[in-house]
Amino acid sequence: MENLVGVIMGSKSDWETMKHACDVLDQFEIAYEKKVVSAHRTPDFMFTYAEKAKEKGLKVIIAGAGGAAHLPGMVAAKTILPVIGVPVQSQALNGLDSLLSIVQMPGGVPVATVAIGKAGAVNAGLLAAQILATEDVELAEKLAARRDRIRDEVLESSDTLE
Amino acid sequence: MENLVGVIMGSKSDWETMKHACDVLDQFEIAYEKKVVSAHRTPDFMFTYAEKAKEKGLKVIIAGAGGAAHLPGMVAAKTILPVIGVPVQSQALNGLDSLLSIVQMPGGVPVATVAIGKAGAVNAGLLAAQILATEDVELAEKLAARRDRIRDEVLESSDTLE
Amino acid sequence: MENLVGVIMGSKSDWETMKHACDVLDQFEIAYEKKVVSAHRTPDFMFTYAEKAKEKGLKVIIAGAGGAAHLPGMVAAKTILPVIGVPVQSQALNGLDSLLSIVQMPGGVPVATVAIGKAGAVNAGLLAAQILATEDVELAEKLAARRDRIRDEVLESSDTLE
Amino acid sequence: MENLVGVIMGSKSDWETMKHACDVLDQFEIAYEKKVVSAHRTPDFMFTYAEKAKEKGLKVIIAGAGGAAHLPGMVAAKTILPVIGVPVQSQALNGLDSLLSIVQMPGGVPVATVAIGKAGAVNAGLLAAQILATEDVELAEKLAARRDRIRDEVLESSDTLE
Amino acid sequence: MENLVGVIMGSKSDWETMKHACDVLDQFEIAYEKKVVSAHRTPDFMFTYAEKAKEKGLKVIIAGAGGAAHLPGMVAAKTILPVIGVPVQSQALNGLDSLLSIVQMPGGVPVATVAIGKAGAVNAGLLAAQILATEDVELAEKLAARRDRIRDEVLESSDTLE
Amino acid sequence: MENLVGVIMGSKSDWETMKHACDVLDQFEIAYEKKVVSAHRTPDFMFTYAEKAKEKGLKVIIAGAGGAAHLPGMVAAKTILPVIGVPVQSQALNGLDSLLSIVQMPGGVPVATVAIGKAGAVNAGLLAAQILATEDVELAEKLAARRDRIRDEVLESSDTLE
Amino acid sequence: MENLVGVIMGSKSDWETMKHACDVLDQFEIAYEKKVVSAHRTPDFMFTYAEKAKEKGLKVIIAGAGGAAHLPGMVAAKTILPVIGVPVQSQALNGLDSLLSIVQMPGGVPVATVAIGKAGAVNAGLLAAQILATEDVELAEKLAARRDRIRDEVLESSDTLE
Amino acid sequence: MENLVGVIMGSKSDWETMKHACDVLDQFEIAYEKKVVSAHRTPDFMFTYAEKAKEKGLKVIIAGAGGAAHLPGMVAAKTILPVIGVPVQSQALNGLDSLLSIVQMPGGVPVATVAIGKAGAVNAGLLAAQILATEDVELAEKLAARRDRIRDEVLESSDTLE
Repeated sequence: MENLVGVIMGSKSDWETMKHACDVLDQFEIAYEKKVVSAHRTPDFMFTYAEKAKEKGLKVIIAGAGGAAHLPGMVAAKTILPVIGVPVQSQALNGLDSLLSIVQMPGGVPVATVAIGKAGAVNAGLLAAQILATEDVELAEKLAARRDRIRDEVLESSDTLE
Repeated sequence: MENLVGVIMGSKSDWETMKHACDVLDQFEIAYEKKVVSAHRTPDFMFTYAEKAKEKGLKVIIAGAGGAAHLPGMVAAKTILPVIGVPVQSQALNGLDSLLSIVQMPGGVPVATVAIGKAGAVNAGLLAAQILATEDVELAEKLAARRDRIRDEVLESSDTLE
Repeated sequence: MENLVGVIMGSKSDWETMKHACDVLDQFEIAYEKKVVSAHRTPDFMFTYAEKAKEKGLKVIIAGAGGAAHLPGMVAAKTILPVIGVPVQSQALNGLDSLLSIVQMPGGVPVATVAIGKAGAVNAGLLAAQILATEDVELAEKLAARRDRIRDEVLESSDTLE
Repeated sequence: MENLVGVIMGSKSDWETMKHACDVLDQFEIAYEKKVVSAHRTPDFMFTYAEKAKEKGLKVIIAGAGGAAHLPGMVAAKTILPVIGVPVQSQALNGLDSLLSIVQMPGGVPVATVAIGKAGAVNAGLLAAQILATEDVELAEKLAARRDRIRDEVLESSDTLE
Repeated sequence: MENLVGVIMGSKSDWETMKHACDVLDQFEIAYEKKVVSAHRTPDFMFTYAEKAKEKGLKVIIAGAGGAAHLPGMVAAKTILPVIGVPVQSQALNGLDSLLSIVQMPGGVPVATVAIGKAGAVNAGLLAAQILATEDVELAEKLAARRDRIRDEVLESSDTLE
Repeated sequence: MENLVGVIMGSKSDWETMKHACDVLDQFEIAYEKKVVSAHRTPDFMFTYAEKAKEKGLKVIIAGAGGAAHLPGMVAAKTILPVIGVPVQSQALNGLDSLLSIVQMPGGVPVATVAIGKAGAVNAGLLAAQILATEDVELAEKLAARRDRIRDEVLESSDTLE
Repeated sequence: MENLVGVIMGSKSDWETMKHACDVLDQFEIAYEKKVVSAHRTPDFMFTYAEKAKEKGLKVIIAGAGGAAHLPGMVAAKTILPVIGVPVQSQALNGLDSLLSIVQMPGGVPVATVAIGKAGAVNAGLLAAQILATEDVELAEKLAARRDRIRDEVLESSDTLE
Repeated sequence: MENLVGVIMGSKSDWETMKHACDVLDQFEIAYEKKVVSAHRTPDFMFTYAEKAKEKGLKVIIAGAGGAAHLPGMVAAKTILPVIGVPVQSQALNGLDSLLSIVQMPGGVPVATVAIGKAGAVNAGLLAAQILATEDVELAEKLAARRDRIRDEVLESSDTLE
C-alpha cells in the first residue's frame, strides 16, 4: 500500500511525542512513513524529502520539532502538500518557542499548527485523516465513528467521578 | 459552482482580517461562502452550520476569531471536515489569547491553526487550496505557479533596497 | 433536596482539581450534581445540559477545563445562569492557555473566572455559595463564620513559624 | 429605588472602561451607585465601603482596577457579597498585570474575574444582572431577550460583509 | 532590643522562602519580628499591623506573598515605612503573577520589589540592612565586610571548576 | 545643601520617565543630583560614580534603565547604599525586559525595583523619601500629609464621574 | 574591495530595520553586500547563497527576519561562517516570536542573536566588525575609538537634562 | 599553547551548563581558560578580566549567567572582543529572564546570544570555533567535518524509530 502520509521529526527524541500521530494513523489504517529529518542538521535531505514528497504519492506531511522549530515551515516552503506542524515541548520554555516558531509563518507558506506535545501529535494524525477523508467516504465514516465512540466514553466517565 | 470552502468569523469586525483569506480563494477561483457565525452569540446557528457543512458540499472550513476564540474549535467539534483557525489580533493581548484558545485543542478534535492576523488569513486561504489540491491537479499547478511568481518577486526586490 | 449547583468538567482528569469545588459545596451543605461534559467531545450533550440547567432548578454552574478551555464559555453562551470558570492547570503552558481561553470572553457572554488550579476550584465553590447567599441569610452567616474561622487559623499560625 | 450593585474603580481614569458596566446596568434598569475607591490611596474608605456594602442593600460589587490591581481582591476580603473584578488595560503590560493581580486569588476569597478592558466591563454588568436574575424572573426574561436580540443582529450582519 | 524590621508573609507556607530574609537579619544581628499576616484572610489585622508598625519602632517592613500577592502593596498603603516586597514562587505561574502583583504599584504607594523566591528573600534582608545602614556606621561596615567575604568566595570557587 | 539622592539613567532618552522621580524629590525639597550614567557606554564612570556615592554623602541612588537594563544592578554591586531601580518602558517588549533585568538580581545584591515607566519613577522618588524619612521626622510628616492630600483628591474625584 | 559581510533579510520590509546594520558597516568602511533572501519564499536561493558565501570571501553573515524567522537559522545550517541573527519587530507579538525563533537553535548550529529591532541591527553591524577585528588591528582601533567617542557623548549628555 | 577563548560564568552552579561549551572547545582542541566571574559579586575582577582579555591573547569570550544576567553585557562593555552570552536556565522563570537580560542590549554594545541552557552552551563553543575559523583553514575543515558526522548520525537515527 502506498504511503499517504509522511511523519517526520527534527530529532529522535521527538519520537516520544510523534508516535502518538503514528498511533492514530495506524488506527485508521492509513499507510505512512516515519523519518528523522532535521532542518538544521540535515538541511539538504530535508529539501530533497520535501521536493519528492508529492511525486512519491504523499498527500500530507506531519512534521514535529521543538525550540527554534524550523522543520515544518521549511518543508512547507518546499512543497505544496499540506504540512501539519507539531510543536514539541521544549526544555526551558515548555514549547512556547516551538509553537511560535511553527505557527507564525509569513503570508505565502502556511503550516497547519496543532497543540504543543502529545495532544497536538494525536490531533496531527486526526487532521491528516480528516484531510484525506475529504475524498474518501470510508475514512470519513471511520472518523465519524471514532467521534461517536469517544463521545460515549466521555458520557460514561461521569459515573466514575469520585 | 458549488461552494467548497466556508469562511466564517466570530464578528463582523473580523472581516478586516478574514477578507485576506477570501482574496486568496478568489485568486484560485475556489468557490466559497462567507458568514458571521458567533460561537457565543449564535451558538445554535454555529452548530447547525457545522453539522450541515459536509452534506452541502463544503470540503474545508476557515474560521477566524479573537480573544477567547471558541469558534474554530467548536465548529471542529461538530464536523469532521478540516477546520482552519485564524487567530484575529485582539485588543489587549495582541492575539496571544486568540492563538492559545485556538491552537491548544485537546486530543480528538484538531484545528489547523495559522498565524495571528493578516498573514494567518492569507495562509488560511492557501492552506484550504493546498488541501483541495491534494485531489485537484490543476489547482496544484496554480499553487506551484503562485510560489514561482512570488519567488521571482522576492528575488527582484533585492535590487530596490535603499 | 434539589440541586442548586452544577459542577461540570471537560475531562475526568479534571476531577483532581474540581473536587475541591465540590468539597466546599459539601461543607456548606449545598446540593449539587457533578458531571463530565466535554465541549469538544460531547458538544450536543453540553448544549442540552446548558439549555436545561435553569429549568431543572440549578442556580449556578461551575465549569472547569484546561488548554483551549471552551466549556465554560460555551455553556455560558447557552444559559443566563451565572457560569463560574475554573482554569485547570495544563501540561505545557501551566494553565495560562486555560486562563486566557476562559476569561477573555467577548462582550455579551460573561464567565466568572477564578484562579488556575486548586485555589480556583475552592474559590469557585465559595463564589457559588456567595451568589446563593445573596438570597439566603443562613448561608450568608455560614460564609461569614467560615471567614472568621480561617482568620483565626491564620492568626494562630504565626506562632508556629520556624 | 435601592441600589443593588456598587460599581467602584481604583482611579477616575478607569471610568472610560467602567462606564460600559454602568451602561449595561442602565439597560436593565438595575439601580447602582458608582464611586472611585482606591485600594492604595483610600484604603480605609475601601474597607468601610466593603464592610457596609451588604447592610446597605448591595447584592453585587463590580470593581475595576489596573496594574497591581488590588481593589477587587481587597474588597472581596472584606465582604461576602460576590465581587466581580474588571482588569483595566494598563499602560506598559496591556492589562496582563491587572488580570493576574485580580484573578490569581488564594483559596478562600474569590473574585469573579472578567476580560481585560471594555468587553470585560460590559460582561461585569451582565454578570451582575445574571446573578440578580437567579431570584428575579423578570430580569431573567430581559436577559434572555437581550441574547435573542444580539443573536439576530449577528445573523443579519453576515449580509453586510464586504 | 527593639525590633527594627517586621517580616510578614501571607501564609505559613511562605516561610520556606521568607526564612532566608530572617537568616540575613540574624547574620547582621538586626532585631526583627516575624508574623503570618494575610491580606485576604486577616485584612483587619493587616491594617492594624501596618498602622502601628511605625509607632512601635519598626523602620522597615519585609512582606512576602504569592499569586495575587496583595500583602506588600496593601501594607505599603497603610504606612510610610519602606516596604520590601518578596514575590513568592507560585504553583501555576512560577511567581510571574506574584511579581507583577507586587511591583506594578500605581504612582503614590511604592513597594521595593526584589526577585522571585529565595534569592529575593535573601536580598530583602540585605536591602533592609542597607536601609538601616544609611544611619548606622557599624552596620554599613558589616555590609561591606560581607561583600568582601562573598567576593573572595567567588574568586576562590574558580579553582574548583570541574 | 548636600545632595542626598543620586538620580541616574542609562540614556538621555530615559529623562522623560525619570524626571517624575525628580519632581517628587523637588516636592519634598530633597536635594539630589541627576546624571546620565550608562552601564554599557560609560562603564568606568558608572563604577566610579557608585564607589564615591556614599562618601560624597548620598543616602539613596535611583537608577532608571530600559531593555537589558544593567545600570541599577551594577551600581548596586558597587555600593551598599540602597539602589532603587526603575524599569523604563522599552520599544519592543514594553518594559518586561527592563523589569526582569532589574528585579531578578541574584542573592547578595538587591535592587529595590518599582513599576515600569512613569508610575515607577514617581514611586522611586517616594521610596527614596520614605527611606530618608526613617531618620527624619519632618520628612515623615510631609509624607503622611501627602498621603492625606491624595486620599482627599481621590474621594472627591468620585463626584466627577460621568 | 571584496565583500566581507553579507547582509540579508527575509523581506524588503525588513530593510527599515536592517539598514542600521549597513550604516555601521559603512562607518567602518567594511565592504558588504545586501540582499532580500526569504527562507520561505526563496528557499533554494537561500541554500545556494549560504553554500557559496564562504567561497566567495564572506567572513560573516547578518540575517534579519520577523515572525517565524527561519532565515538566520537555516543559513547557519548551510555554512560554518558565523551567522548573526536580527529579530525584526513583528506586528502582533512585537518580535518575541522573531527572537525565540532565532535564538532557540538546537545544539549544533548556532546563531549569534542580537536584540529585537533597530538596536539589534546596529549591534549586528558592530558584532560583525568585532569578529573581523579579531584579525584586523586597524579595525580594532576604530572600534575602540568609537567606544571612546560614544562614551564622551554620553558623559556630555548629562549636562542637557531638563 | 596560548588560550584563545575565555569561558566565564556568574556562579559555580552555572558550570553544569557551561561545561558543554568547554567540551566543544576540547573537541576542536581550542585552548581556553575557565573562570567564575560574577558581575555582581566580583565587579572589579570582572572589569579587570574584560580589560585584559584582548592583550593576553583571547580572541573570543563566552559568558554564561542566569536571572538578571549582567555578566555578558558588562564584559562586552569593557572589551571589543566578540562576547557570546549563554542564558542559564533560571529557577522561577526558566531562563526567560536570563535570555532577555542578555540579548536586549542597547545599540553600541552587542552580545552574541545563544539558546537557553545546554544547547546554548554547546552552540557557544561552536560559535567561538566558527569565529576563530574565519582565519583558520584547518579549524574550518574540522567544523565542516563535524557537521558531516552529525548529519550522518541523524540520517541513521531514522532506522531506530520505535
